[in-house]
Amino acid sequence: MKFVTFEKRDGTIRAGWLLDQHHAVDMYEASGGVLPSNLLAFLENSDAFLERIASLSPYTNEHKGVYPLNELRLLAPLPIPKSFRDFYAFEQHVKTARENRGLEMISEWYEIPVFYFSNHLAIKGPGEEIIKPATCDWLDYELEIACIIGKEGKNISADGAEEYIFGYCILNDWSARDLQRKEMKVGLGPAKGKDFSTSIGPWIVTKDELEPFKLGKGFDLSMKARVNGVLLSEGNMKDLYYSFAEMIERASEGVTLYPGEMIGSGTVGTGCILELGEKVHRWLTPGDQIELEIDQLGVLQNEIIVEER
Amino acid sequence: MKFVTFEKRDGTIRAGWLLDQHHAVDMYEASGGVLPSNLLAFLENSDAFLERIASLSPYTNEHKGVYPLNELRLLAPLPIPKSFRDFYAFEQHVKTARENRGLEMISEWYEIPVFYFSNHLAIKGPGEEIIKPATCDWLDYELEIACIIGKEGKNISADGAEEYIFGYCILNDWSARDLQRKEMKVGLGPAKGKDFSTSIGPWIVTKDELEPFKLGKGFDLSMKARVNGVLLSEGNMKDLYYSFAEMIERASEGVTLYPGEMIGSGTVGTGCILELGEKVHRWLTPGDQIELEIDQLGVLQNEIIVEER
Repeated sequence: MKFVTFEKRDGTIRAGWLLDQHHAVDMYEASGGVLPSNLLAFLENSDAFLERIASLSPYTNEHKGVYPLNELRLLAPLPIPKSFRDFYAFEQHVKTARENRGLEMISEWYEIPVFYFSNHLAIKGPGEEIIKPATCDWLDYELEIACIIGKEGKNISADGAEEYIFGYCILNDWSARDLQRKEMKVGLGPAKGKDFSTSIGPWIVTKDELEPFKLGKGFDLSMKARVNGVLLSEGNMKDLYYSFAEMIERASEGVTLYPGEMIGSGTVGTGCILELGEKVHRWLTPGDQIELEIDQLGVLQNEIIVEER
Repeated sequence: MKFVTFEKRDGTIRAGWLLDQHHAVDMYEASGGVLPSNLLAFLENSDAFLERIASLSPYTNEHKGVYPLNELRLLAPLPIPKSFRDFYAFEQHVKTARENRGLEMISEWYEIPVFYFSNHLAIKGPGEEIIKPATCDWLDYELEIACIIGKEGKNISADGAEEYIFGYCILNDWSARDLQRKEMKVGLGPAKGKDFSTSIGPWIVTKDELEPFKLGKGFDLSMKARVNGVLLSEGNMKDLYYSFAEMIERASEGVTLYPGEMIGSGTVGTGCILELGEKVHRWLTPGDQIELEIDQLGVLQNEIIVEER
């Protein structure tokens, strides 16, 4: 299933799923209020709610709560995740980004999957405009895949971690490279370089839909990024050095994970301008259209705009 | 005023304030349900709710919703902040911690206040036990002060930033130094070194109460840490190199801050074992009692326990 959050013509915001290519279901309306109106509440009890959905077909046959997609504005499928951890799990990205700065690979990278927390209160959706921070001249995209936690757990072993995953979506970890470069010298990692926007969507695909594509540490899913229609980045999700299960093992070590937390993979190889180099493409500027595409997960499109103060 | 969150003998969790040294008010009960039952909801409309409180005296005179403190268990005053940014704003801590590793001071530190996001879902309260992560041998405390955001804003200038502060509390940024040292080599800052626990409390003191103590970039408030009754750390909040107003300016650059977000100062000089050195004190072990005390903000006490898997 593909879960979405959308705004209806009357301004109501609801969650639901895609019924087919042209229709979405408002789960609250279709269930007569039995299913919740937002996806976070759904995730907090997803096993029971998924069973409810299975019993809903009579409702959806009557078209109760079914809307044509062209009457809806899709928002971030999970508008405010409970948290956002971003990992660094594709080797090529780390290697190339370091080579570009004249740095060798770090041996610790091969020992533990490493992440940082970013701003879960600045999530943007498909089609939403991304404001270039006024103080940033080196604006970049990052092509990533995210998983959404569907079950509470602590000290989860990688072997059993898939049970804790609800689904996956495309993630663009927008980056202000000049701000990031400066702050990272102080040693606390990236924060202002990343906190202004992260976009996700257009929907969250439940894990069962990706089962047939399992390969390597992930799935055989092509990942692409286009800027103003020009293909710049091309990778594959199967090239993950650490699986999402291993990332969950690391994140949950001594720490409880809750439904609705979001985990990013880190950038796929070639998945940002920093890695490609400015000879391949200049930094992003207002008016640029950025499209991230991952097989089975759709296309996440955003446009850069100027910050007005 | 001193705002608290507590558990009553019947298991109900409520927010309120200290009436005197021995009593707290359940704000929901005392107001007949007009004031909210949790502090986050209070913060989301604090100006209006503070006015309501001013009109409540008849209720509290009748002792409606007033409880003796010895019948209550104080919890973290804000059990789940909307987010947690931790800065690095005391010069002596940064300098000494770097000297201990043979590193010089970084010039960028003097140009911008730098922070990282930590785990806002792992907040502990006064008296709560802190589980030493099973894989950590170098457990440390960090003596900090936090401010709680009380008003939504973006691109807030330092000049006007105090308006966005609701109040202050003591913060202990528990640190697994061995995990932190290893992960930080990868360059994304501290995450597993910090994500297992952060304790705050015992209460949030509204900013008006600290007005008389203004000095330097902060307040003239002595800050102390004791381990098993032995004084190890002693500093003063006035020694901040960056004020909370400057930290808010930085955090809100291109980013909306919301009521209930929490900002930590970073460790005061001498405020952790990493800085003092193991000659002064060994790393923390189960059974250790750690007390952080800040003038006007109370005492935050926690005990270390073993992780049982």
